[in-house]
Amino acid sequence: MIANVDRNSLRRGEPLGADAVAQLFTEARTHNAFHELPVPDALLRDALDLAKMGPTSANQQPLRVLFLTSTVAKERLRPALMSGNLEKTMGAPVVAITGYDLEFYEHLPFLLPHADAKSRFADNPDLAARSAAQNGTLQVAYFILALRAVGLDAGPITGFDPAKVEREFFPDGNIKANVIINIGYGNDAKLFPRSPRLSFHEMATIL
Amino acid sequence: MIANVDRNSLRRGEPLGADAVAQLFTEARTHNAFHELPVPDALLRDALDLAKMGPTSANQQPLRVLFLTSTVAKERLRPALMSGNLEKTMGAPVVAITGYDLEFYEHLPFLLPHADAKSRFADNPDLAARSAAQNGTLQVAYFILALRAVGLDAGPITGFDPAKVEREFFPDGNIKANVIINIGYGNDAKLFPRSPRLSFHEMATIL
Repeated sequence: MIANVDRNSLRRGEPLGADAVAQLFTEARTHNAFHELPVPDALLRDALDLAKMGPTSANQQPLRVLFLTSTVAKERLRPALMSGNLEKTMGAPVVAITGYDLEFYEHLPFLLPHADAKSRFADNPDLAARSAAQNGTLQVAYFILALRAVGLDAGPITGFDPAKVEREFFPDGNIKANVIINIGYGNDAKLFPRSPRLSFHEMATIL
Repeated sequence: MIANVDRNSLRRGEPLGADAVAQLFTEARTHNAFHELPVPDALLRDALDLAKMGPTSANQQPLRVLFLTSTVAKERLRPALMSGNLEKTMGAPVVAITGYDLEFYEHLPFLLPHADAKSRFADNPDLAARSAAQNGTLQVAYFILALRAVGLDAGPITGFDPAKVEREFFPDGNIKANVIINIGYGNDAKLFPRSPRLSFHEMATIL
């Protein structure tokens, strides 16, 4: 079996170092309070540049992001937030509204030039909407981990009124609001204890 | 502003090293062909143990995974696969069928003990289904990156008949099929050139 293995590939088969695993997964936490430190726009760009490398079906990349960095922009979001998310969101240095573009297929001639993928979605709005939601949500998760990868902390929330967000920020109607992510340098002193996780056998079976 | 910052937190604000970024994002690829090398079950467990640390709304963790490692198990999947995904999936050392549990709320008294989150979802099946799809899909993306983090390669696909997968593998009806992930040690020689990505300004705006 080993004979047909490319050694360059095998070198790739190493786990990440412990520090990287901690930063992305095991020590990273959802933050509800952030230090009063500015977040450079360049880091937001870096994080999105990493996130967009994650795989999507037919390379459709439906994720769209509005980064609210000014007080004026954040105040436009206030009426859509559930009360429990008001203080932490208005207090975050940056608030990212993620959404997915129902008309992502307009980009497919560029993104997937070797196939006519555009017409398959353009002719079937239900399929396009399901696929945009699925792939746009995968990209939200890539983006959360990418924010951590560039050294930022994330506090994703879903407790808001998506219809209000869409009316205010996506009035053209082709972008659906998905997850809001509060972004900054998290204040560890304000963390709650970590909540439990399911065991392997509660989540998975090996057949 | 710097005065109220905890120095331990600031040390955390460093980017991942270049090797880790390459392994997770920039050099990682969706693989369609794998070397004939076995994948230890322990690595699958390690990857899921990392993935489950990623955030979900109300800590609901709806992701469920069936790891098909035997030929018998993989053959059960064959009739549900689109023809373009047949060879690569049947040839993968491990095939993970990911799904999300519509009754994830049964675990909430354990997962979120300080709130009565269970009744909010148990009494509203539409909300539960939307939330399970959204959070279960975030967890699929955490899992794809976690597989890369433990040194494996992933080839996620959505080209299959979910109803057939559910009838065959989730006959109780409470788990919906989401993304199938082919897993192994990818054969770089069989990769296509990487497809393009959208630019920052096509995906995002800073307000």
